Amino acid sequence: MTKPSLPQGTRDFDTATVHRRNYIFNTIKNVFELYGFQPLETPAMENLETLMGKYGEEGDKLIFKILNNGLDEPKKIDKTKEGFAKLLEGKSSKDITERALRYDLTIPFARYIAMHYNQLTLPFKRYQLQPVWRADRPQKGRYREFYQCDADVVGSRSLLNELELVAIYATVFKNLNLPVEIRINNRKILAALAARCGGAGKMTDIAIAIDKLDKVGLEKVEEALKERGLTEEQVSLIRQFLEITGTNDEKLAALKTILAGNVTGLEGLNELEYITRQTVANIQAATLVIDPTLARGLNYYTGTIFEVKALNVQMGSIGGGGRYDDLTGLFGVPGVPGVGISFGVDRIYDVLTEINGFPADVYAGTKLLFFNLGVNEAMKAFELMQRLRHRGIAAELYHEAAKFDKQFKYADKKGIPYIAILGTRELETGTIVIKKLQTGEQTQVTFADLENYTF
Amino acid sequence: MTKPSLPQGTRDFDTATVHRRNYIFNTIKNVFELYGFQPLETPAMENLETLMGKYGEEGDKLIFKILNNGLDEPKKIDKTKEGFAKLLEGKSSKDITERALRYDLTIPFARYIAMHYNQLTLPFKRYQLQPVWRADRPQKGRYREFYQCDADVVGSRSLLNELELVAIYATVFKNLNLPVEIRINNRKILAALAARCGGAGKMTDIAIAIDKLDKVGLEKVEEALKERGLTEEQVSLIRQFLEITGTNDEKLAALKTILAGNVTGLEGLNELEYITRQTVANIQAATLVIDPTLARGLNYYTGTIFEVKALNVQMGSIGGGGRYDDLTGLFGVPGVPGVGISFGVDRIYDVLTEINGFPADVYAGTKLLFFNLGVNEAMKAFELMQRLRHRGIAAELYHEAAKFDKQFKYADKKGIPYIAILGTRELETGTIVIKKLQTGEQTQVTFADLENYTF
Repeated sequence: MTKPSLPQGTRDFDTATVHRRNYIFNTIKNVFELYGFQPLETPAMENLETLMGKYGEEGDKLIFKILNNGLDEPKKIDKTKEGFAKLLEGKSSKDITERALRYDLTIPFARYIAMHYNQLTLPFKRYQLQPVWRADRPQKGRYREFYQCDADVVGSRSLLNELELVAIYATVFKNLNLPVEIRINNRKILAALAARCGGAGKMTDIAIAIDKLDKVGLEKVEEALKERGLTEEQVSLIRQFLEITGTNDEKLAALKTILAGNVTGLEGLNELEYITRQTVANIQAATLVIDPTLARGLNYYTGTIFEVKALNVQMGSIGGGGRYDDLTGLFGVPGVPGVGISFGVDRIYDVLTEINGFPADVYAGTKLLFFNLGVNEAMKAFELMQRLRHRGIAAELYHEAAKFDKQFKYADKKGIPYIAILGTRELETGTIVIKKLQTGEQTQVTFADLENYTF
Repeated sequence: MTKPSLPQGTRDFDTATVHRRNYIFNTIKNVFELYGFQPLETPAMENLETLMGKYGEEGDKLIFKILNNGLDEPKKIDKTKEGFAKLLEGKSSKDITERALRYDLTIPFARYIAMHYNQLTLPFKRYQLQPVWRADRPQKGRYREFYQCDADVVGSRSLLNELELVAIYATVFKNLNLPVEIRINNRKILAALAARCGGAGKMTDIAIAIDKLDKVGLEKVEEALKERGLTEEQVSLIRQFLEITGTNDEKLAALKTILAGNVTGLEGLNELEYITRQTVANIQAATLVIDPTLARGLNYYTGTIFEVKALNVQMGSIGGGGRYDDLTGLFGVPGVPGVGISFGVDRIYDVLTEINGFPADVYAGTKLLFFNLGVNEAMKAFELMQRLRHRGIAAELYHEAAKFDKQFKYADKKGIPYIAILGTRELETGTIVIKKLQTGEQTQVTFADLENYTF
């Protein structure tokens, strides 16, 4: 007899959780569709070679690989001891595994774009909301199965897309009643800073160091940069850069001074200015803040980068994204630019839980429980219930003629707000008693009137 | 460079497909909720031991197992040649794999019930709509990743549940405008037939043989039964049974004769009669037909069994289910009865495609494309577009000031019904031209009037 349990880092979602999660999902999806984005779904499994090598060495290790089974084509297996040892040492071979679980939504999307590039209407705007799997060590707030939620525009270099994506963030969080700050920066500005600090080769070092600013503080960042060979003067320039404050316009002016006419830097500044000075995009619904310290770890961003933080709540970023130049080069279709954002739906769930931000009616549930008071009474109740359901009112009939207590308890535990009592007397008089449990208020209505009863 | 492809037996779902699938999913979910069923979601991964041994020897082989990786607890590995050979021969060991992908929704549900039995409000009515994975050889209409859609009532022996489930089938297919026949039988009747043909031990043989009736015909079924040791007389009884025709009441009468007072059989007949004679459950929306030849392969059914066939279409069953006595015994919680149904959503999709049964507006998509005719014009268009989106109208602005042709083509390919033209002249006069592409009809409206324009 197995004592049942769940794999580490995975979760069951009960009714209340499913409905609250769907509230978040639907709010986001509705906005995506208002903005002309279209859904795409890809399979949970991808060919291993589609995924491997795309997430760095660490990422590769965290990909869940699927064991081949007897029905796959037989493969030559190196049956020596050394052969087996190699197979099992994580140097995965096609003999053991050829498929893996999706690790994010970006690579499957790139794979899809590469496979269908010639049939797509560009710019291609897709959104995708699906689970991904990572063999990370589970801990609070980090799961091995979790949802990602991405929207990308592919095949356009227009900054209008950045505007749209900022507006999407603003609208979604406004609709969720969740006050946020959208932080924005531009990789070209970071590149220009790198150029002023010893060349483009320093870009990654600088980005990674800056990325850690929040966690380790300015002093440690400076130490790390010096260790990477930056001069006192260069580190001082970076310090000035990181200490920029003020309004967006003040920050733009300060950046202009520091970047001293670097052409790429000016391009980045113009882009930032274009986006942050727009008043038309309703982006004022959220606070859009230039943050020169925003770097975002992933290397493939090349222009605007975004990050969203919930205000007044202790929580990492609940959204992020940016512009990239070459989504599908790895799959043989070079030069496909794009820009995208993602929503951290699990964290948004946690924030809304913390601030008690879910609407009370996020899950309507069953409206009315018909008590079961005998065979004939139940049959009449069934008939009346079907008419209510036909009107779109969720109703149930208790499954057996149990004691009142038991039926009350069922209604109570399921949070059903109304009960309907139809006993021998009611059957004779053609009436039914409706009781609102919260107030105890009772009404007697005829069978015919029940049709139009307002719950 | 990888030439990208999909694993065999898996699919990407593009926009149109996602929306058509969601139409089916939402139609079903809405009915489930009207009937008081609540959603449950379980993780894609289960512990291997939760799944193994639950689906028969063949099923075990078709379970997709997930390779352990470095982050799992280190396990003792038998590093001899024989040890490795054993590991790779499908006798999966914890050293290689401890987790697997969900093979169906029933076992994860049973696992959930067993884990939470004491906290549940009984009867517990859950529905679940999630993908499952099977390493079946892919072929037309059979995939390695596909959705299942189940509704079960657990913890009640009341026949009212059967009535409800029949009504759910009837309502869902009525809402989908898909004419179906719901076939119904009862395992107790088959058990009684077995008892009359040499005892309960023959039950499985008979059920399997009957199950093949559709495919192989009566003659082959009789041969198979004889091979299994049934006498001429017994086979003749089964023939009579299988040849029963007429109305439901005529079938009930004929069954009564054949089962000749067998107690279990009479119980089954009473249950069948109770369900098929009800007029209150709106089940007349579908055709409910007693089918004595309905056996359903799975052994765990003990009472009513269902199957749904689409009328006028060549297609296997698009739904099925039944009553079982012991859902969670395998997980240490014995005696939990239940009854459930499932919808074959992939097949329903295929049937609706074949009969052209998807509503025209299943995917609304973008309503209006604003042409992009220059920087200032685009900014004004953006502003107007935001107001429309605020009203819930999906709109887009073409991403760059391209030639008319190109913008038209985009609208056409994306199936956008209206375009909005805002050029220099319109900007000056504060108007905008709306054109309905299907008819060519054009209207000039002021910016203010656009707010109330009916698309």
